Amino acid sequence: MYPFSFRNPTRIEFGVDKEKNIGAYMQEFGVKKALIVYGSERIKQSGLFDDVAASLKAHGIEFVAFGGIKSNPILSKVNEAIEIARQNGVDSVLSVGGGSCLDSAKAIAAGVLYDGDVWDFFVGKAVVEKNLPVFDIMTLAATGSEMNNGGVVMNEQTQQKYAINGADLYPKVSVINPKLQSTVSRDYLVYSAADIIAHSIEGYFTADVQPELINMQIEANIKTVIRTTEILLENPNDLDARGEFAWAATMALNGLTYVGTHGFSYPNHMIEHALSAICDVPHGAGLSVVMPAWMTWYKDQNRPQFERFAREIFGLQTAEDGIAALKSWFDKIGTPTTLSQLGVSDEQLAAVIDNAVQNAIDWQMSETYTKAAITKVFDLAK
Amino acid sequence: MYPFSFRNPTRIEFGVDKEKNIGAYMQEFGVKKALIVYGSERIKQSGLFDDVAASLKAHGIEFVAFGGIKSNPILSKVNEAIEIARQNGVDSVLSVGGGSCLDSAKAIAAGVLYDGDVWDFFVGKAVVEKNLPVFDIMTLAATGSEMNNGGVVMNEQTQQKYAINGADLYPKVSVINPKLQSTVSRDYLVYSAADIIAHSIEGYFTADVQPELINMQIEANIKTVIRTTEILLENPNDLDARGEFAWAATMALNGLTYVGTHGFSYPNHMIEHALSAICDVPHGAGLSVVMPAWMTWYKDQNRPQFERFAREIFGLQTAEDGIAALKSWFDKIGTPTTLSQLGVSDEQLAAVIDNAVQNAIDWQMSETYTKAAITKVFDLAK
Repeated sequence: MYPFSFRNPTRIEFGVDKEKNIGAYMQEFGVKKALIVYGSERIKQSGLFDDVAASLKAHGIEFVAFGGIKSNPILSKVNEAIEIARQNGVDSVLSVGGGSCLDSAKAIAAGVLYDGDVWDFFVGKAVVEKNLPVFDIMTLAATGSEMNNGGVVMNEQTQQKYAINGADLYPKVSVINPKLQSTVSRDYLVYSAADIIAHSIEGYFTADVQPELINMQIEANIKTVIRTTEILLENPNDLDARGEFAWAATMALNGLTYVGTHGFSYPNHMIEHALSAICDVPHGAGLSVVMPAWMTWYKDQNRPQFERFAREIFGLQTAEDGIAALKSWFDKIGTPTTLSQLGVSDEQLAAVIDNAVQNAIDWQMSETYTKAAITKVFDLAK
Repeated sequence: MYPFSFRNPTRIEFGVDKEKNIGAYMQEFGVKKALIVYGSERIKQSGLFDDVAASLKAHGIEFVAFGGIKSNPILSKVNEAIEIARQNGVDSVLSVGGGSCLDSAKAIAAGVLYDGDVWDFFVGKAVVEKNLPVFDIMTLAATGSEMNNGGVVMNEQTQQKYAINGADLYPKVSVINPKLQSTVSRDYLVYSAADIIAHSIEGYFTADVQPELINMQIEANIKTVIRTTEILLENPNDLDARGEFAWAATMALNGLTYVGTHGFSYPNHMIEHALSAICDVPHGAGLSVVMPAWMTWYKDQNRPQFERFAREIFGLQTAEDGIAALKSWFDKIGTPTTLSQLGVSDEQLAAVIDNAVQNAIDWQMSETYTKAAITKVFDLAK
């Protein structure tokens, strides 16, 4: 076990209808006026928005709503929301949506109290010293953002898809209602599965200190994602499976799978962020393309762990068999595994590679992830 | 997944020498004067006390020291410490010891700010509404108290070994230094192993809703305890094993193995508390006696889960084989598995049974745990 500090103060409220208490939860934190951040107008048709509004009103909380956050969330919307938050004097941000909404909400919460450009936080020019309290109601399980202090937003001018972090950017309360998540489309369910598996394997394969207990916890998350995805493809309304899928997503990126580890990196995310920055593919779809390719490229650097993965997850023996089994499983559930399935043109690919090379530099991974290496990974993904 | 609320704000500082920063950690919380609670004077001989004192002084924190807490901590010491804390106007409590010390520290932290009798909190006569902040340096891994909001103390007058809980009784910062824990005696290492396994199996066997993901996480903890105990019996200074053992202890009772579950109870603890209340046996030693007996008595109420336990933990098939394997493992590591090994006389046993019967009533478990049932469990432990 490598030395570590761990702290995660987020309160999880898990269960059907819990979003109807959001006003009570926020009142406990002294909230008077919230910015509600959301994506599409579907939450108005479904009644979710009304439920949230009613709960806030019942607890004397005013609100302003800001919609239109899309997946692969963009900086211009964050800046727009920061302006609205300031004009309206809100004291908190409530995300009602998936990871993109919540990641945007975190950036907004930090940006409102910062005199400079919020992008400074993403490129290391400034550290988040204070932020409005963040709350969320998750309509999609994938990013784990509901129980961590980070978020990813794309600067569409520079085409950089980068992360913000802050000591107090942990949501105060996150609501996970499996029933709300059961309306997620088939596509986004399988993209989410790929995203959770990606969060699970980054440290698992790259760390140079990786305790056995942590390996087992990660494998428990991966097995849960595989098992529950298959159940949910058959029956989207299985709330037990939906709930376990959601909790695996939370557990995969709340910090617990990184305690006692050392030397890990996030190469799949680093490479995929370039794909979604240039081609605007769904993050999870990009990841299911990148992962098998990256694994094939990387496997000899940590062969025992790839053999372990094959054995523990799929009951197979060799590194190659484990990678092939994961790719087959992605094919089976219907998330893409090749660049051509994503519709990436050769011209786009050249831009993606350049973008990834820049990411590697900015993420301090360029020693391993040279242009040649990144090109090789993408070759394996064709 | 059953609905749940989860929140655990404790910060863990894990690693060699982290206790030397305790003054800095406490200063972050505005501490000016601490009550140091500890057990034997060994921490003075080892230099640990001096390290802690030096760190507090270096950060301008005064302190009063209160020693003599023993395993199976008693109420009179808690009351004594509350008086001393009041007389000295301390604003925080720092436990330097094992779970008994920290459990006492939690009771002291709540008792100092309460006008009534601190025992009120243990018997449900009062709820902890405020408490001094609690910090700890763990010299022994077992109870999980370092990352939860509960503690167990014995009222030696009434011979009740009961628990206190409080919404803010989570330690602010817990220091886990595997090296500090490597001086734990062989006996207390194996008792601790039994305690962690007991924390793991209570919910695992008794819950009527038990998600697969939670099962896997519990099994990961149990397997880690078994593996690392065997390593540590060979080499007490293996810091990787010591660290994983400690982290498994923390993970086994920080609430994460109970999320999404329902209907669980703590029968092994309920029964064992009677043993340690009457006979003053080490808690873990009592548990390794109670567990195989209770499992044998209970197995038909949840046979599939006992078969799962046999399969996942020991690679065996039947409930009976799994129980026998656990008992054999306890025998192998040298923690007691029979009442006679504990030296419990027939006269004592009668008092133990009466005490357990009263626990069952007070813990609202008397429907299942009648005098006949408890007697039967103890018969199986002879």
